[in-house]
Formats: sequence, structure tokens, C-alpha cells
Amino acid sequence: MKIGIVGLGRMGANISRRLMRAEHECVVFDKSADTVKDLQKDGATGVGDLAAMIKALEAPRAVWVMLPSGHITEETIEALAGLMDKDDVIIDGGNTFYKDDIRRAATLRKKFIHYLDVGTSGGIWGIERGYCMMIGGEADVVKRLDPIFKSLAPGIGTIEKTPDRDGKDPRAEQGYIHAGPVGAGHFVKMVHNGIEYGLMQAYAEGFDVLRNKFSTDLPEDHRFELNLADIAEVWRRGSVVSSWLLDLTASALAKDEQLTNYTGYVEDSGEGRWTIEAAIEEAVPAEVLTASLFARFRSRKEHTFGEKMLSAMRQGFGGHIEQGHDTGKKGS
Amino acid sequence: MKIGIVGLGRMGANISRRLMRAEHECVVFDKSADTVKDLQKDGATGVGDLAAMIKALEAPRAVWVMLPSGHITEETIEALAGLMDKDDVIIDGGNTFYKDDIRRAATLRKKFIHYLDVGTSGGIWGIERGYCMMIGGEADVVKRLDPIFKSLAPGIGTIEKTPDRDGKDPRAEQGYIHAGPVGAGHFVKMVHNGIEYGLMQAYAEGFDVLRNKFSTDLPEDHRFELNLADIAEVWRRGSVVSSWLLDLTASALAKDEQLTNYTGYVEDSGEGRWTIEAAIEEAVPAEVLTASLFARFRSRKEHTFGEKMLSAMRQGFGGHIEQGHDTGKKGS
Amino acid sequence: MKIGIVGLGRMGANISRRLMRAEHECVVFDKSADTVKDLQKDGATGVGDLAAMIKALEAPRAVWVMLPSGHITEETIEALAGLMDKDDVIIDGGNTFYKDDIRRAATLRKKFIHYLDVGTSGGIWGIERGYCMMIGGEADVVKRLDPIFKSLAPGIGTIEKTPDRDGKDPRAEQGYIHAGPVGAGHFVKMVHNGIEYGLMQAYAEGFDVLRNKFSTDLPEDHRFELNLADIAEVWRRGSVVSSWLLDLTASALAKDEQLTNYTGYVEDSGEGRWTIEAAIEEAVPAEVLTASLFARFRSRKEHTFGEKMLSAMRQGFGGHIEQGHDTGKKGS
Amino acid sequence: MKIGIVGLGRMGANISRRLMRAEHECVVFDKSADTVKDLQKDGATGVGDLAAMIKALEAPRAVWVMLPSGHITEETIEALAGLMDKDDVIIDGGNTFYKDDIRRAATLRKKFIHYLDVGTSGGIWGIERGYCMMIGGEADVVKRLDPIFKSLAPGIGTIEKTPDRDGKDPRAEQGYIHAGPVGAGHFVKMVHNGIEYGLMQAYAEGFDVLRNKFSTDLPEDHRFELNLADIAEVWRRGSVVSSWLLDLTASALAKDEQLTNYTGYVEDSGEGRWTIEAAIEEAVPAEVLTASLFARFRSRKEHTFGEKMLSAMRQGFGGHIEQGHDTGKKGS
Repeated sequence: MKIGIVGLGRMGANISRRLMRAEHECVVFDKSADTVKDLQKDGATGVGDLAAMIKALEAPRAVWVMLPSGHITEETIEALAGLMDKDDVIIDGGNTFYKDDIRRAATLRKKFIHYLDVGTSGGIWGIERGYCMMIGGEADVVKRLDPIFKSLAPGIGTIEKTPDRDGKDPRAEQGYIHAGPVGAGHFVKMVHNGIEYGLMQAYAEGFDVLRNKFSTDLPEDHRFELNLADIAEVWRRGSVVSSWLLDLTASALAKDEQLTNYTGYVEDSGEGRWTIEAAIEEAVPAEVLTASLFARFRSRKEHTFGEKMLSAMRQGFGGHIEQGHDTGKKGS
Repeated sequence: MKIGIVGLGRMGANISRRLMRAEHECVVFDKSADTVKDLQKDGATGVGDLAAMIKALEAPRAVWVMLPSGHITEETIEALAGLMDKDDVIIDGGNTFYKDDIRRAATLRKKFIHYLDVGTSGGIWGIERGYCMMIGGEADVVKRLDPIFKSLAPGIGTIEKTPDRDGKDPRAEQGYIHAGPVGAGHFVKMVHNGIEYGLMQAYAEGFDVLRNKFSTDLPEDHRFELNLADIAEVWRRGSVVSSWLLDLTASALAKDEQLTNYTGYVEDSGEGRWTIEAAIEEAVPAEVLTASLFARFRSRKEHTFGEKMLSAMRQGFGGHIEQGHDTGKKGS
Repeated sequence: MKIGIVGLGRMGANISRRLMRAEHECVVFDKSADTVKDLQKDGATGVGDLAAMIKALEAPRAVWVMLPSGHITEETIEALAGLMDKDDVIIDGGNTFYKDDIRRAATLRKKFIHYLDVGTSGGIWGIERGYCMMIGGEADVVKRLDPIFKSLAPGIGTIEKTPDRDGKDPRAEQGYIHAGPVGAGHFVKMVHNGIEYGLMQAYAEGFDVLRNKFSTDLPEDHRFELNLADIAEVWRRGSVVSSWLLDLTASALAKDEQLTNYTGYVEDSGEGRWTIEAAIEEAVPAEVLTASLFARFRSRKEHTFGEKMLSAMRQGFGGHIEQGHDTGKKGS
Repeated sequence: MKIGIVGLGRMGANISRRLMRAEHECVVFDKSADTVKDLQKDGATGVGDLAAMIKALEAPRAVWVMLPSGHITEETIEALAGLMDKDDVIIDGGNTFYKDDIRRAATLRKKFIHYLDVGTSGGIWGIERGYCMMIGGEADVVKRLDPIFKSLAPGIGTIEKTPDRDGKDPRAEQGYIHAGPVGAGHFVKMVHNGIEYGLMQAYAEGFDVLRNKFSTDLPEDHRFELNLADIAEVWRRGSVVSSWLLDLTASALAKDEQLTNYTGYVEDSGEGRWTIEAAIEEAVPAEVLTASLFARFRSRKEHTFGEKMLSAMRQGFGGHIEQGHDTGKKGS
């Protein structure tokens, strides 16, 4: 198929390359002309603006927008809509908030332009492993673009078949699903990321408990100096906690068991936050997902004001004066 | 009554003074001779060691031990037990772990020495306000010492009477209770402190949300520069969240709304930890009490190793490089 | 002063009564004619619709809207705005989301109508104790209505003065504050309720730990049958955890230590949810406030689907078959 | 090698079988004679009591105890120690608390009997996939039993090699490690299970958010009826959250998307609890691991007493009467 791709960052460029390897034709645009040239070398048709892209594609067109969520995605979609014809399709492959998808699609529908939201997981590994995709939108439009999704997806590969799946949608085993109407794709991807935070934090806390088992505040015969790299490695084999995130952890610890290159300052992205908001809207308790998000918030602060308040109260009722640094010991 | 007091720190000295004001006779001992002299000036009989104390008291004796929990309390009680006679009473007024009370009392019982565990709340304010006491031990021994407890307790004072308490134990309204057998006093005090952590953290988080409402990361028309001192003050009057801890908060904020004298490093004591262990033993979910304890643990660290692991994983799957300091903004 | 009051539910009716006791004139309206009649007996001027209310007031008018947050409040304010003149004031005393305040005020500003948002705490006790008020809006409009706020507020009363408040806004000590621009009043009230959830949950968990100390799953010499009513009572006197919420708890437990009239199903209102959303917007960790909200969500479910998933996984890796009811014992 | 195996439950029997497949000789004992006979059919030497087992083995002997943690394991080890000679080895392959290991090994050391603690993960899949083992004890004893561990472990298999592991202990890649001195094996396994709880809860909460997205309390255009079985399946392929636990989840959902066979009552075992206690001893915040444990506690209760207290307080300050069942709607 022929498809337009707007945004050639790490994700957009690799998606283009994976599509071209599967013999699809990619018409690509990025605000950086150099990036466009790089893709041209790999076989893409580069264009200088959106109008040129629309011209280079045949109706009904499909344009995959792969930009940071927010203003830039919003504006690009508006601009595309202004250039497109009835029955064309805009695909938002970024990390858009699903309520924005619903709003946008309603606007585009008036112009008979279709909209698909595609939650895309795979990161820097996607070009080789394939991308796991969760798609929202009209069923026939999703079907029309099936060749694109099929090529981007990892495929069945060597992963063991899940028993009892006979008669179920075979696309899931290929690595992509039609999750539901517009918004459903990004919603499922959002929750995916929420879970990701929880999984990561579970490992992080567990390894913290392992590492601090050598603390001099513990009785000497209860101290262990554990080899975290070996522990991560052994858990990859036959244990209940094996996972891809554990593979990555084992790899990082094999390189440097102290992780000295990391400050411990951890960013979060919108999906983690939106997942909690969705849980609250649905009145679903989501303690672990929330704690994972808050741990990241806390990691970015030297101290909270609230912590100072705790000390002020302790002084107020007990005359306690706090120390200035961690001894690991219990207070008075 | 005549009573021995061992340990003349802030709590022990003030307890002695409050007892003497109520015309009790205090025989006092502390490893610091100067501290003993100070109390002598206030009317106490100072002694130079435990043997002298035992001599100075009349059988059946009562000795109140008010020392930091742990070895020093343990050793003092053992030494006293070696000097005491049948029917004497040892009172542990410190913050002993209740299982240690149960173990100790079993040993003392063989020598027919009684043991009371008295959880004592009141901090630096107790000498004026009185001490709230939760007592564990044999009912007749608690009764024997009632004059002591009555004098230490705050009494009914100006606090409004709880309706429907007719026919219930009148001691609770005086500010002390016989909670149950040995260990029950310290157990109730332990949970009291666990709750204290939770209450403090609830205020801390709320005020954090208020204070950060002026963050430049928020849209300009959604920013408020709130006066925390006035907010704490107004909530003292007619609001649902009024409490003594809020009074102390209002007082600290009135002095300095920035709380610049506090680093944000917050200690914890054994009771908070033991409360969580009790919850786990009982299979009781105690999310808030635990989160409060963990917030203190986290306040004492620059970063956790687990946070570095999160960054390592993020780099592993997404190529993300973390920034070094908080911009308050969401990550990519 | 003369003021209109729309909505004569528990809060609106009592606010009217407290104002009339202070010699203010109240023009009242409610969709229930009977309720209006009741207030008329107490001295209010009853009217049959909003137009009549506007007519009965003199410019510049002030109308206090005290309705459930949401559509009904929104519609009433729109209707009032259509009837009002330049410089009139609408006061929203309900539990409106502060972003709705900001939006509404911007609309009303075009018609030169003022808007105040007044977060009001005090519940069913307010008529006697007074209402704690957090006010958002223009300073001169807040000042214009000062006689109203002063009369509704609890006043200094018998509550001890906070030291070091000299030179600070004296209104806080009276029980009301001008928190900031429009929205700030409801924002502060919202966080107040968020804290309230946290405080309540801290007590709830602590008493759960106390109550379950009699579980037959514990070793016999570690079991205590504790008197919760007496414990709540004693903590009211001289302890660090004394508060109004504890007073209410003591009162409920004095009536019935088993709390048999309560199912354990617990509602939540918007403020608790919005507080978490604010924390997330500000990247402030708020573990305790969130856990308190989630505990309520969980209280309203027999089981979550997630819990079934846990059992399914446990069967998947370990062949574990779950029991059907709580034995309190640890699993295999 | 020749080895004795005590306890032929699911784990012990399968371990015996996997060892015999690798040409080791197993002398087996179980209190159930039938179970012993079953193993004999598979080639094991069955014995009728521990004395017979000791006789059937040659010095220096090795006996693997695979029994439920607690009294039965304790008694068996004591009995074995009474029968064994200097330099024999007892292996505890169960889920013993690591502090019990340390205590036991100290006792056995006086008799010059060795003790290894082997945390064993693999569940019902271990016989085919192999067992992931974390071993504590003296290095030369661990080395002596290497043929046993090597045969039980999964081996390198088809799992991708972690980069940068050159020069590190090759046993980790085979699926077993010598974690450290006595206790270290069970400690690492304990934390493994703690992490397992966290991972499981993260998935559980995420799927709860997905499933409740069809709630009738949400606005109609924000509702999605999501296919959880397909979502679990698609995430197995190329997504960041792929793991063995997700494979099991996909399998359970493929069988029955409603999970109707599970009540939602979830057990916990000692390791999850001990992990939290270790975190508290080390002053390590472990919010996610704790929340996971508490979610299980809560799953086993109809209601907590704490929840009733919340309702009692709400009635106390606001006159709120709670409803009896979940409408999913926000309260007043």
C-alpha cells in the first residue's frame, strides 16, 4: 500500500522503514529536511509540506501522524483535514488522550474524513521486533488498512500459542487488535502504560529490598551482600516473575550493577496520569498504578513541603528535632 | 502515694513534677546526677542507684521506668526485679513493643512481681495538659495505682462530654483506661501512633496540593497563590478537619509560612513500624498507615536504587534519557 | 444586609436561619413551596420564583445559591444572570468544581455580574457552631459581603488563639478567609475534603487493627479484646490524635460499639476525586489521600474483576484453588 | 548423584521425577505410603521412615526436605539431624522464613551438619520447564550438590542471552544461583514472591480499568466494551508489558473472559508478608508491594469494621445515610 507518514522521529522513521521492508510505499514528511533526506535514502518519497504529501498519495488516502501528543499533533491533523477529500483516513499513532480522539473524530466525520487512533508499543525495538498495536475506529476502515497493520505487527513468531483461542480474532496473535470505536485504541494503550508503571515499580521496590539487605543498620548475621545482576538473570529462567522488563533490568545490571549512570530522577508521561483519572471516573481502586505514578513524582523532588510539615508537627507535639541525613536508624 | 521514677528525661522529669504537684512523693533516679539534683529542688527524693531507690520505698513498692525503649529499659527492669520483693510493681511507661511486655511479665510473674505497661501520650505538653494513658496489666494492680494515674491524667476539663457514655468506665473520660492484660496498654498506644502518622500525612499531602497550586507548570488562570497559614487557621474553626495536629500546624505556619527551618527529613519511631506488622499479622489492610510510614522512609533518602532501575528500564525499552532535576513538567 | 438564598435543603435552610438570627433579611426560594413556607415562619421572605427574588432585592443584589453541584446549580446561575443587573453578585456556596467557577465567572464578567465561590464546611452542626468558609473572588466584592460572612462564621469562640498571628488577616480567626481569585474558595474547600478522607481512613484503619487483635488466628497470649468506645474516649483527652472526627467516632462507638447499623458501604463525593486530579496535575505525590478514596471505591464492591484475575494467575502458575471465605489464615 | 527427598507433594514428587530423568538416584519418603509407591513406579527407592532413608544413602548424605513451611519442616529437620553424621547436608527447598534458616543452621553447625536453603520457583510447570533456584549456604557444599541443581534448573534453553554477562557466574544463566550464606536463598525467593504480588496486582488493576470502561455511569460516548482476552493476547507480542504472568492471564481469559469460576477471594502466603517486614526493617519504601498484599487481605472480607466507622463519621458530621449497594455513582 501507499501511505503518508508525518513525523520522522525515532518512532515515525522506524515505522516507515519497517513498512518499506514489507514493500509498502511511504511518502514522508518532517519539519527537518535532513530527516526526510535520510528516509529518502532508504527508499521513501520525501515531500516538503503536507500539501505535497496529499498530492503524492492517491484517494482514498491514508496518512499516519506520528508526532508528540498535544498541540503539534492537533495542528497537523487540522491541516491535513483541510487538504483531504471525503473517505481519506488520518491515523494518529502517537500517545493522544483518548477523549481528544473522540472529539477530533466527531469533527472530521462532518467532512466524511475517517480517523483511526493507534496505540503503538514497541519503542526502539519495534523496527526489529515489530509493533504491538491497539486500534480504535470504524471496522471497515481498520480492515482497509490491514496490510499496513499486518506489516508493522510482530506476527506470531516463536511465541507459544495461547490455548483455547480457537475461533477468536486471529489479529491479536499477529500483534494488533481492533479494540473498538474511535478512542478505544489509545485507551487500551493508555492502560497498557499504566500497567507498565506498576510492573516497573514492583521490580524497583523488590530490588531495593534486596540491595538494602546489606545495610549496616541490620544485625550482622541478618545482612546479605546480594548480587543483583545474577538475581535478575536467574529470575529470567523458569521463575514466575520473568518478563521483558526483567530482561531489560538484567541487561542494565549486567552492564553496571550500581547503575551509576542514572540519577534516580524519573519522568512520567501522560498515559500514567490518565490511567488514574480513568480509574477514578470508573470508581475502580487502582492503588498500585497510582503508587507507581506518585513514586515518580517524588523521585523528582529533593523534598516535599509536606515533609517539612511533618517535622514541624513532630516538633510541635514532641519537641523532636530532625536530623539532616539518613542514618537508616529508627528515630527516637 | 509514694512512687519511684527511673529516667528523668523530658517525659520522666515532667511526670515526676506533675505527680508532686498532686502531692505524691517521688523517689527519683537518673544516670545523670545533675538531673536528679534538678528534681530534688522541685521536692523529689533523689537517689544514687536502684538499690537506694528500693530502700527508700515501702512495700508493696511501685517503680515507674521511663526510659528509651530497648536495651536500657530491659536491663533496668531486670535489675529492679533482682532487688524487689513479692507484690512489688514495675511500670514501663516508655514505648516498649507489646510482645516484649508479654515476655517480661511472664518472667516477673515467677517472682510474684507485677508488671504494668503504660502507653503515655502527651509529649512536651503533658505536664500542663496531663497525660493520656493506656494501661495493660492485672486489674487489681491497676486499681492499686489509680491515684497515680488519676493525677497524671488530664481529667474531664472543658472537653465536651460524649453522649451515651452513661454506665461506661468513667476513667476514659478522665484520660486513662485499663486496656486489658499485660501488653494491651502499649498495643493501644502503638496503634495510636500509627494513626498519628496517618493523620499527619493526610495534612501534609493536602497542604502540598495547596502550595503547588502556584506552580508555573499549570495554566496561568488555574494558578492560585494560597496563604497556607490563614487556611490552617480557618480550618480550626467549624471545619471537619479541626484537630490538635491542625492547631500545631497553624502555629508552625503562623511563625514561618515557608517552614524554612525544617529540612524535610522525617524520622519514624518503632510504633509506626509495629502497627504495620500488627496489621499484617491480623490480615487487616492498612494502606494509609503504611503509606505514611513509607513517606518518612523516602524523605530520608536522596534517591532510591529502585528509581535508578526505573530509569534504566525506560532507557532499555524507549531510549529515554532522564533529566537531572524537576521541571514539574510531564516527560516525553 | 438583605440577601437572596436559593435552595433550602439542610444547608441552605440553616444558613438562612443563622443569618436571620444575626438580623439579616433573607429572601428565600426553593422548588418546594412547603420548604419556603417553613422558612417564612422563621422570618424569611418567601418568593415563588427567581424573578420574584430579584424584584424583592435591592441593587446591588446578592444571591447565595446553595444547591447540589452540577446541572441544577449551573442552570440556576444562568437564570439568575439573565435577570440580574450590573454589579449584582452571585455566590455559589455549594460544592462546585473550581474550574467550573473560573469558567462561569468569565462569562458573568462580560455582563459585569460578580461571582463568589464559597466553600462551606460545617455540615449539620453549622447552624449552631457556625460555618467555616473559604471564599474566592474579587476582594472588594468579598468585602461588600463581609457582614454576611461574619455572621455565618463561628467567630473566635473558646478556641485557643494561635501564637504569632499578630498582623495577619483577622478574618481567619473568625472562621472565614478570602482565599484568592474566583475558584480559590472551592479549591481550598476541595482539598479540605481530600484531607478529611485521609484523616477518616487513618482512624478507620487504626481501629480495624485494634478490633482484629482478638482474632482467633493470633496466638492466644497475643490476643486482646479491646474496648473501642473507651479507647476513642480516652484519646480525646491529652492525646496527639484528638480531633473533631475522633469526637464523632467516640460518640458513634458509645452508642453502639459494633456499629451494627452501618453496612460498610461508603460513598464518596466529587471533592475527594478532584483533589487527586489536582495532585496529579501538580505532580504532587498524594498516596494517603488516594488510598482513602480507593478504600471507599472498594467498599462498594463485592469483589473486583482484578481479584478474580489474581486467582486465575495463581491457579495458572501454582495450581492454587482459592477458598471461598475468610479464615483469616495465611494461604498455602 | 544419590539424594534423599522428604515430602512428595506436587513439588517434591516432580523434583524427584526431574532428577531421575537426569539419571540421579532418589530415595524418597512421604507420610503417605501410596505417594511413595507412585514414585517407586517411576524408579525411586521408597522408604518407610527417615531412619531407613539415612541408611539407604551413603555419607556424606544429602536430603532435600520439600514440605510446607512451619512445624512439619522444623520437626523433620530436627529428626534428620538426630540421625545424620558429620558433613551430611540438609536442604530445605520449601518456603521457610529466612531467619528460621539462620537459626537452624547455627544449631546444625554444632553437629557439623550442613544446611542449604533453596528458594524454588517453578510451580506446577517446573517438571517440564525446570526450577529456578536461589541457594543459601556454604560455597563448597553448594558446589558439592551442583549436579543436583544443574539437573533441576531450566538451563539456557531458547531464552536470549543477556549482553555484557561475560565473566559473571555462569550458573545464573542455567537458572540457579548461590545467593549467599544460609538464609540468602530463601530471602531472595521471598522478595521474588513479593515482586510477584506487585506484578499480579498491576495487571489486575489495569484489566479492572479496561473492564469498567463499559460502566453505564460513564457518558455514553466514553464507554467501550473491550475484549479483554484479545487485549491480553496482543500485549504478549511486542509490547512492554509482556511476561509469563501475562501469558497465564491470556490463557485464563481465552478460556472464559468472565472468569466466572473464580470468586475473587485471594489467599496470600508468608513470603508476601515477610517481604514487607523486610522492607520495614530496612526502611525501604515499598508502596506497591504492600498495596498488593493489602488488596488480597481486603478481597477476603465482606466489609471491614473501618468502613463502618467511615459511614458513622459521615453521618456524624453531615447526616449522610449510606446506600446499601454499588450504583457506581458518586455520592452526594
